[in-house]
Amino acid sequence: MAKHLIADLYGCGQMIDDPEAIREAAHTAIQYVGAEIVEECIHEFEPIGVTYFAVITTSHFSVHTWPEYGYAAVDIFSCTDTVTEGIAGKLKELFEAKEIKTQIIERNIGDGSLKNEL
Amino acid sequence: MAKHLIADLYGCGQMIDDPEAIREAAHTAIQYVGAEIVEECIHEFEPIGVTYFAVITTSHFSVHTWPEYGYAAVDIFSCTDTVTEGIAGKLKELFEAKEIKTQIIERNIGDGSLKNEL
Repeated sequence: MAKHLIADLYGCGQMIDDPEAIREAAHTAIQYVGAEIVEECIHEFEPIGVTYFAVITTSHFSVHTWPEYGYAAVDIFSCTDTVTEGIAGKLKELFEAKEIKTQIIERNIGDGSLKNEL
Repeated sequence: MAKHLIADLYGCGQMIDDPEAIREAAHTAIQYVGAEIVEECIHEFEPIGVTYFAVITTSHFSVHTWPEYGYAAVDIFSCTDTVTEGIAGKLKELFEAKEIKTQIIERNIGDGSLKNEL
């Protein structure tokens, strides 16, 4: 069973419109939970908004920001609780969010009943 | 309000261990809903598994595969229903999934009460 943590961050600071600030916050949060980045990409929308995505060891996470609302959507998908909760908490702090709303979705990655013969 | 569609695909074909097949399926699904890719990245895990991520016009989506279970986790985040449902349905077909389980998470991107002064 994998855990997908969905976090909605409200009342974030203005750094959520700065791709480099978001990348730096992501790196800090990933380092904080002891994980490593294996792939990342970032996109700045016109006129406003940033998407950041990283594949980290055995997990991934993404951040999408709507700076005009002070809002950031964060998704962390991992098999390790400390990773999902650690990253969400750290980003709340680094984005200076006034409020965080989290939801946990348990994702059953399969019991093998429909698996392939590899 | 944005819509986050979470799809768990079970009983997928062996192409879910092939990064190029996944990229091609993603392109087909994106084209199918009339969207365009603005950024994408792909990562092949060792010994098995692929992660694909794309930023598409006003939306994003990601695919993570566990070929050993015939399982693919698909996430599509968009403000447009036809995009989320169209991509999920198309990927089910292209991955030859025997079963799909979907969940819709409504994400309130903010009512402005905690917004920044830009």
